[in-house]
Amino acid sequence: MHAVPDALELLESKLADYQALDSIAYLMAWDQRTIMPPGGFHHKADQISLLQRLAHGTLKDPEIGRLLDELEERDLDPDSWDAAVVRVARRDYQKAVQVPVELSAEMARASAESAPVWLEAKATSNFELFLPLLERNIELRHRYIECFGPQDEPYDVLLDDFEPEMKTAEVRRIFEEIKPELVELIADLRDREIDDSFLTGDFDLDEQVALDHEVIDLFGHRPNTWRIDPTEHPFASGAGIDDIRITTHYYRDHLKSLFSTMHEYGHGLYQHQLPREYAHLPVGQSSGLGIHESQSRLWENLVGRSLPFWRFFYPRLQARFPDQFRNVDMEQFYAAINKSQPSLIRIEADEVTYGMHVILRFELEQDMINGRIELKDLPEHWAEKMHDYLGVEVPDHARGVLQDMHWSSGLIGYFSTYLLGTVMSVQIWEKAAEDLGDLDDQLERGEFTPLREWLERNIHAQGRKYPPQELLRRATGSTIDARPYLAYLKRKFGAVVVA
Amino acid sequence: MHAVPDALELLESKLADYQALDSIAYLMAWDQRTIMPPGGFHHKADQISLLQRLAHGTLKDPEIGRLLDELEERDLDPDSWDAAVVRVARRDYQKAVQVPVELSAEMARASAESAPVWLEAKATSNFELFLPLLERNIELRHRYIECFGPQDEPYDVLLDDFEPEMKTAEVRRIFEEIKPELVELIADLRDREIDDSFLTGDFDLDEQVALDHEVIDLFGHRPNTWRIDPTEHPFASGAGIDDIRITTHYYRDHLKSLFSTMHEYGHGLYQHQLPREYAHLPVGQSSGLGIHESQSRLWENLVGRSLPFWRFFYPRLQARFPDQFRNVDMEQFYAAINKSQPSLIRIEADEVTYGMHVILRFELEQDMINGRIELKDLPEHWAEKMHDYLGVEVPDHARGVLQDMHWSSGLIGYFSTYLLGTVMSVQIWEKAAEDLGDLDDQLERGEFTPLREWLERNIHAQGRKYPPQELLRRATGSTIDARPYLAYLKRKFGAVVVA
Repeated sequence: MHAVPDALELLESKLADYQALDSIAYLMAWDQRTIMPPGGFHHKADQISLLQRLAHGTLKDPEIGRLLDELEERDLDPDSWDAAVVRVARRDYQKAVQVPVELSAEMARASAESAPVWLEAKATSNFELFLPLLERNIELRHRYIECFGPQDEPYDVLLDDFEPEMKTAEVRRIFEEIKPELVELIADLRDREIDDSFLTGDFDLDEQVALDHEVIDLFGHRPNTWRIDPTEHPFASGAGIDDIRITTHYYRDHLKSLFSTMHEYGHGLYQHQLPREYAHLPVGQSSGLGIHESQSRLWENLVGRSLPFWRFFYPRLQARFPDQFRNVDMEQFYAAINKSQPSLIRIEADEVTYGMHVILRFELEQDMINGRIELKDLPEHWAEKMHDYLGVEVPDHARGVLQDMHWSSGLIGYFSTYLLGTVMSVQIWEKAAEDLGDLDDQLERGEFTPLREWLERNIHAQGRKYPPQELLRRATGSTIDARPYLAYLKRKFGAVVVA
Repeated sequence: MHAVPDALELLESKLADYQALDSIAYLMAWDQRTIMPPGGFHHKADQISLLQRLAHGTLKDPEIGRLLDELEERDLDPDSWDAAVVRVARRDYQKAVQVPVELSAEMARASAESAPVWLEAKATSNFELFLPLLERNIELRHRYIECFGPQDEPYDVLLDDFEPEMKTAEVRRIFEEIKPELVELIADLRDREIDDSFLTGDFDLDEQVALDHEVIDLFGHRPNTWRIDPTEHPFASGAGIDDIRITTHYYRDHLKSLFSTMHEYGHGLYQHQLPREYAHLPVGQSSGLGIHESQSRLWENLVGRSLPFWRFFYPRLQARFPDQFRNVDMEQFYAAINKSQPSLIRIEADEVTYGMHVILRFELEQDMINGRIELKDLPEHWAEKMHDYLGVEVPDHARGVLQDMHWSSGLIGYFSTYLLGTVMSVQIWEKAAEDLGDLDDQLERGEFTPLREWLERNIHAQGRKYPPQELLRRATGSTIDARPYLAYLKRKFGAVVVA
């Protein structure tokens, strides 16, 4: 005898299909960006577009609306997972029904088709190749925004997909608070002389690969569940909590890949520690991209560029690259990896200058969406802001507007989450340190389990139970606040200079 | 103004969705078997099962039946692609509607879930671990067979999925013709002494990888469309005609991987040369697994173990492995790679003994499906037949019943296509040689383009326009015929011994 399935079971079964299609699409995108033979782009675009059409169609099924209506009548404890399942499904359904499936399939197709073009445009520093992608994506975003009717700001619609429930005005307020302080700090640090010449050299690629594995194994994860692959633009992905795939870009002449791997470890760990019981449902996914980025920045910077960590790890690095580091002591190394210097490439920027790269993109995105600049003039506006904010001149498009893949694949509204996440990473770090008592000592002993478990308990295993700001408030006692971040930068980068 | 879509367009659009889901599922299976972190098996089973459910649901949509009814009223030229689209869709639809979606999803799940268990069972030679998989799969096949109502032989239902329109009785007839001749030839060759000691040794793995790439590049394909990855059990897959992925298993002490790569090249080339215009539809796929195998066996054996090929290629092999082959002349090498000797492992068997490995499996499959043997006794029956047919004793399950992944993943009815394909490969080869005039001379000059193009024209680019036997008849003038194959074996293996 079968019990009649309950409305919640029925809802979850439909949501599970949606979520599985979504994770298949993620895996397809991973495949495209790491190991697919380049000739496969055309097939892949067809397949990704179909998956998007099916996923979206599954999500906007009117039956979901009916089940939600029924479930919302029930008196569910708002703090329960059941209530969260319904809340998250309502949000997703509400958005899904406003957008035609054909449009979202077309957006997915445009994104998948752009990848090889962006790679070529970047390789040849050719903005003309990139411009049609940008035009197509901006046009698609305008059509997407229109689906949602009148807004305070059109950009709000885009932002909400990456940073749920955050308004453009709020981001602007936070960034306006950060901007003058960063400008001042950058100016202060500009003329400090720090020797980092030993970070450039000849670093055997096999050793770099082994180093990256050593670090992610040291930071910790369950066995047989992770892989690292080389790619053009590093990212983290995965097909589920036990199939985590991070990527990195190796450079023979530099150890940059190490920090990039720590960064992606943070993203991967979030995915790895999502609530097992709900990982097959939308409610069991990550809360938002800002929180996601807080995790990557936390492992990259607050662990990976910290003095306690390097007290522990530097001898291991020296053992792996004895010729390069034999005559460099730990304090010199620490100062070098924390050298602040305005530069051209966002993903290689130090902690101080990083924020300005994001603010520049956030501003330009709004100008593009609001039609305040012509797309063909984007490189000039880019160069102007790079000059004004960081005092650097852009020598070519590859190191300018073509450096990131986001805009070519339609990810507009995404960049700001990098800085929001960085800001939140400090709040989270400070609360973890308070709760754990001797976090610095733990790092210095190479113990990462307490931190990993704290993050799991307070952030990862919460899934999407709460929207990002509510999750942050529950974890740290406060919603987003730039002050700890600014104080941290001043403290740390004062100290580095003295060292 | 949009034209009203024609019934054929509507049908093709639905079939294209089905086909895309099917190729995504193939890619997921490739991922699972090559690069997925082992922890991902559970997610993968969910995803593959969902894809099967969606693909099957798409195919049995009653709207497809309605469109087919309408299109079958039309007076389409039976030799046209339009007629073939309809014919193939009717066949697929007819089968799909008889099977509940839940059953095919369960079969897909059982298959995906079996993979890690089979790997462990094989690694530990543990039949007890394997038996429940086999029981589950046989039970699922019985349920599957029942969907199709009464049959001449239940096994016909399974066979038809791999070798369309072929009956068990016909396979039995062909195999009965082959069996006594093979037994005699094996006995004749048993005591011939051929030195192949130089095929065992120390073969640098990087060099082996480079060799495999050299061979597939030499045989030929479009640039940026292929990849080769290591795996436990070699196979060919791909997500489309410009994304071909073959796999191989490298052994440090032997060059076996080279021949396995040539074999998979043949499969890959078929996929690569499917008709571009129809490759997104079922009609644009391969005609059947027997024909597929004819292509792999053709490149592995009729090219890859031929004297003309090695006249061309042996100096290159010597250059890559000078220590191993400096003192071995080409004739010795040729004799060694064609040494016939009964052995335990099917995929490593020589051309003469290979057939008996397949016949053994074909017979055991029918015994299992017809309940003539108990599944728990399978190893004994296996050992008995290995003794009777090949005169070898099975030392453990790993080198016996656990060696192939097929049964664990539910592929029952598949093995016979290996021998059917081998038989057809000789028919196809002889017709190609006749048409091309100087095929041997071409191989000896390292020219593979004419052969590749002949295969494209006569086999690959025909897709599923015709069922396998009709395709073969059009390509060679005859349906399947064991005589050319038997004559080839006697000719070649007589000659080798003399050399």
